[in-house]
Amino acid sequence: MAKPQAPKASIRRWSAGAWSSADDPIAAEEPLQVMLNGEPLTVLMRTPGADIELALGLLYAEGIIRSRAEIDSVGISAEAQERTQGTRVEASLVESNVVDVRLVGQPRRRPQRSFIASSACGVCGAEMIEDLRRDLATVAPGPTIDPATLPNLVDRLREGQDVFEQTGGLHAAGLFDAAGSLVHVREDIGRHNALDKIVGRLLLDAALPASSSVLVVSGRAGYEIIQKSIAAGIPMVAAVGAPSSLAIALAREFNQTLIGFLRSGRFNVYSAPARVGGS
Amino acid sequence: MAKPQAPKASIRRWSAGAWSSADDPIAAEEPLQVMLNGEPLTVLMRTPGADIELALGLLYAEGIIRSRAEIDSVGISAEAQERTQGTRVEASLVESNVVDVRLVGQPRRRPQRSFIASSACGVCGAEMIEDLRRDLATVAPGPTIDPATLPNLVDRLREGQDVFEQTGGLHAAGLFDAAGSLVHVREDIGRHNALDKIVGRLLLDAALPASSSVLVVSGRAGYEIIQKSIAAGIPMVAAVGAPSSLAIALAREFNQTLIGFLRSGRFNVYSAPARVGGS
Repeated sequence: MAKPQAPKASIRRWSAGAWSSADDPIAAEEPLQVMLNGEPLTVLMRTPGADIELALGLLYAEGIIRSRAEIDSVGISAEAQERTQGTRVEASLVESNVVDVRLVGQPRRRPQRSFIASSACGVCGAEMIEDLRRDLATVAPGPTIDPATLPNLVDRLREGQDVFEQTGGLHAAGLFDAAGSLVHVREDIGRHNALDKIVGRLLLDAALPASSSVLVVSGRAGYEIIQKSIAAGIPMVAAVGAPSSLAIALAREFNQTLIGFLRSGRFNVYSAPARVGGS
Repeated sequence: MAKPQAPKASIRRWSAGAWSSADDPIAAEEPLQVMLNGEPLTVLMRTPGADIELALGLLYAEGIIRSRAEIDSVGISAEAQERTQGTRVEASLVESNVVDVRLVGQPRRRPQRSFIASSACGVCGAEMIEDLRRDLATVAPGPTIDPATLPNLVDRLREGQDVFEQTGGLHAAGLFDAAGSLVHVREDIGRHNALDKIVGRLLLDAALPASSSVLVVSGRAGYEIIQKSIAAGIPMVAAVGAPSSLAIALAREFNQTLIGFLRSGRFNVYSAPARVGGS
């Protein structure tokens, strides 16, 4: 994956009672303006790199697009009117803080949910899950995974990250196949951006739904991680951190296997344990 | 701080090659509908508890309100039309997924930034910082802190958290005075909600700007943590995790001291080191 060099900052370090100076790598964060058919849609804070994947993954998660065929072009710089046509979409990873996605036809649905600043009435978790029933399908059964292989995936995710990111500056998401091989790894300072970048990649590769894969995330698993991964048809999500109550409820509703506290030699299964051998 | 009991989930646990069953505490996550003068403003995912503080802290960070005197009432349940008047605002922490904040007059500014789904033109970090210049003041000098006390604040933050939250299910933010005493601690599954809850508390206590305090956050420090803490006049932010490039740029612009990788016996200072003794 092409990505810009991590920026550096001059710092003062205090360690074991003494001060020193250093030039330290830092996690890049910049706003990204996502446009849909030339209209401003949302502004995200993200780590630059894989911006087209990020924008497409976000549009997919929101149900605005469902396949690559619906994309007419993706403009990576509004100012310069650079634009990549049809099949060359995936070739362009140029730095810019604007991505404009042009569709062949109308959006499948009006932008909603994460984009909304309004709701007609009071909300609660149960109602949100009920709403998702209209848009999302129950996850396909998919493969069964040997429990002994799961903790290894965290090591493989870390190996797939850059050195700086291993220090904990960025969230990471890794997509694995059923045999435990790493297929895609993406990193971002934004909580859900790493997953959006993977889903955008899968969309460009016409590899959705990803119905025989395992997603590993470096942090916690909240509502949005589960909603986005169910939309992508991913049958198993494993988080190094804790899952939330709403994440668990959503995973159970859509028969997705949700694993939390994935550590060396142990993990918890919160939903659909049948996909983990011997459970 | 009044807060609901953590919910539990029945899980299957895999540990050292063997399966077992358990009833495990989980991090609560529910949507919160924030209304402004009866109109829907935004929906947040948050851990229930301190919802009024959360809503007020968010409105403060967005520049919509600047003091408690501007608040006419805060409704904690749209359905029941429960409403707390004037000085009794802080007394009501009833569970509900709707908070309606009614102002005495008009909002100081139209909802923007985190709420926006649109922007007039391309964006970049430098432009965002330039924009903030119109709204935010340079942080006051404030006290000088002994470097040896800083790593202790992480331990005190952990002691201030509930047992479950110490397992890493929630983000924590702690506000300390210059002597290193914990003043407020708040926890939330949402990245910035814990800080918004603290700022909302400070607003209710007429304790803003918090110009002699140190904020410690359990995770990373990105753009929004810094923007919100500068708005609250907090002169020093220390993060257990990494700061982002934009967080550093923003802290430097507003002369806020930003500390990252705060661990036992060490930390890095990314901006305004003069507030840390001996730097």
